[in-house]
Amino acid sequence: MAPEDNRKVTIAAIARLAGVSVPTVSRVINGRSDVSPQTRERVEELLTRHGYRRRPPSMRASSGLLDLVFNDLDSPWAVEIIRGVEDVAHAAGIGTVVSAIHRRTSAAKQWLDNMRSRSTEGVIFVTSTLEPPLQAELRRLNIPVVIVDPAGVPPQEAPTIGATNWAGSLRATEYLIGLGHRRIGFIAGPSQLMCSRARVDGYRAALEAAGIAVDDKLIYPGNFYHEAGFAGGTQLLQLAEPPTAIFASSDQMALGVYEAVRQRGLRVPDDISVMGFDDLPEVRWCSPPLTTVRQPLAEMGLLAARTVLRLAQGERIESPRVELATELIVRDSTAAPRA
Amino acid sequence: MAPEDNRKVTIAAIARLAGVSVPTVSRVINGRSDVSPQTRERVEELLTRHGYRRRPPSMRASSGLLDLVFNDLDSPWAVEIIRGVEDVAHAAGIGTVVSAIHRRTSAAKQWLDNMRSRSTEGVIFVTSTLEPPLQAELRRLNIPVVIVDPAGVPPQEAPTIGATNWAGSLRATEYLIGLGHRRIGFIAGPSQLMCSRARVDGYRAALEAAGIAVDDKLIYPGNFYHEAGFAGGTQLLQLAEPPTAIFASSDQMALGVYEAVRQRGLRVPDDISVMGFDDLPEVRWCSPPLTTVRQPLAEMGLLAARTVLRLAQGERIESPRVELATELIVRDSTAAPRA
Repeated sequence: MAPEDNRKVTIAAIARLAGVSVPTVSRVINGRSDVSPQTRERVEELLTRHGYRRRPPSMRASSGLLDLVFNDLDSPWAVEIIRGVEDVAHAAGIGTVVSAIHRRTSAAKQWLDNMRSRSTEGVIFVTSTLEPPLQAELRRLNIPVVIVDPAGVPPQEAPTIGATNWAGSLRATEYLIGLGHRRIGFIAGPSQLMCSRARVDGYRAALEAAGIAVDDKLIYPGNFYHEAGFAGGTQLLQLAEPPTAIFASSDQMALGVYEAVRQRGLRVPDDISVMGFDDLPEVRWCSPPLTTVRQPLAEMGLLAARTVLRLAQGERIESPRVELATELIVRDSTAAPRA
Repeated sequence: MAPEDNRKVTIAAIARLAGVSVPTVSRVINGRSDVSPQTRERVEELLTRHGYRRRPPSMRASSGLLDLVFNDLDSPWAVEIIRGVEDVAHAAGIGTVVSAIHRRTSAAKQWLDNMRSRSTEGVIFVTSTLEPPLQAELRRLNIPVVIVDPAGVPPQEAPTIGATNWAGSLRATEYLIGLGHRRIGFIAGPSQLMCSRARVDGYRAALEAAGIAVDDKLIYPGNFYHEAGFAGGTQLLQLAEPPTAIFASSDQMALGVYEAVRQRGLRVPDDISVMGFDDLPEVRWCSPPLTTVRQPLAEMGLLAARTVLRLAQGERIESPRVELATELIVRDSTAAPRA
């Protein structure tokens, strides 16, 4: 080996030599497929020539850990995703380090310091946005990253795993139409999230396919939280021509609709059908049990763990974005409209 | 230093020399206070004389991790406890490794192998029972252990952290009596768990203090799960003289009672009051929001993390069992009985 092989070559240097951006080099290193074959070849050749080491083998042999980082651990999604990740990691003899960084730079830095001192096979973030400095530091450390992103923001550099929001919403609305509903209220999520847009679009598409005109008065702008479901449910029930079913695009909002229905002295599903979206563990125990669209959160965690471990082994992955199928779960909160 | 100081001395050897049991030596090493001063002194003297090292310093400096081990990650308690532990660990710059061992010896062994290969500052188990072989191995490795035990089985060797079940149940029953209820149904947990017994005893104590005879027909033997709440609620509502309030000794069972009430065409709290126990995050969003007894799960996790880190530093702890206060949380599922 020539002595220069042992010098530390940076991704930035490779990018300069290849005449491409740093993120592009990072994509090649991370096995992403969205790089042209020519560029990949040029970058790979430079990486090899300059003895770039994908991961220090010493680090790799000893860590026995992968990191799972949440913004907040009070998300109703958290435990399902932890379960999926832990399952895969446990089977691989790897420990799952769970952290919350509370959208705070200081907490992210604290996590990074800890992670650096013990090393990791790779990091799974459960978030829609990854702070650029954090992203840059992980790239510099050459640690594989996968993002579990139920909210569906378009991917940046790292592979992301989401769910089929549009298709799930379409199917749910079709189901309500199939029961005989024609006036179906919809409570939307925050409009800046792609998953919110996909869900409202799926709802519209199903109505249009059934030849039912979309009535914008029936669409309430929510935010995925309980309060918005309560407010939206209350408003929709007060319309001169109220809906016979309300599709809340998150389970928490669906439970808010339950409360709005209860406070008006009405009953689910006798007086009004309610549909949710997420299938949080608790909604099978609410009263009545909620009909909803299941996001496969544990499976998303599972796939994220498998993907990050494959990247840690230097494997290439097939697609920068994978969406797992959502599924309609019919319980007792939906029925045919009153005749 | 004499050469024999560097030989590995085992806890078993120290126990033999001191004429005490291995668990007693372990108690002394773990800083437990439930050892007589004479025994402690004799054991400490032998530990020092034979150069027993409480923890290998190399291991201590490098781990940056603590372990949090659940039987199952689908427990509704899990995420709250993770949150408390992660908070403390994060602030201390330590990563929290979350594992599930599914009450399977093979999974526990797998976890142990992984943990041994990377080391840990200490282990928090969320469980009522710790398998003796696991306990023995952790003792041999000289790793501090703390048990978070909401179910309240009497402690073995490791310090345990629980909640004041009896007092919480007493307070909840007093509250229902204060609203004017005299016939109060109770749905119990599994009778082999100490916390179940404490909860039924708190209920009985409050009734007796108020001069209300305990009617055993009003006590249904449940198991903490939703189905038992549904079955118990159904049975209690069918009594010739049904209760005007039902105190389910877990939130999941309280939600089962909600469903029993709904299926009979009745309403909470208009027709019957319902009280829970746990204060799981979701019960503030059920309809109506549930009056319940809060177990401070996040705080229990927090205290467990602090305790295990103190033990890792070689500190002595004050008490082998700590119970944190439960608290009555009044929401909308309870009201005065119909006149």
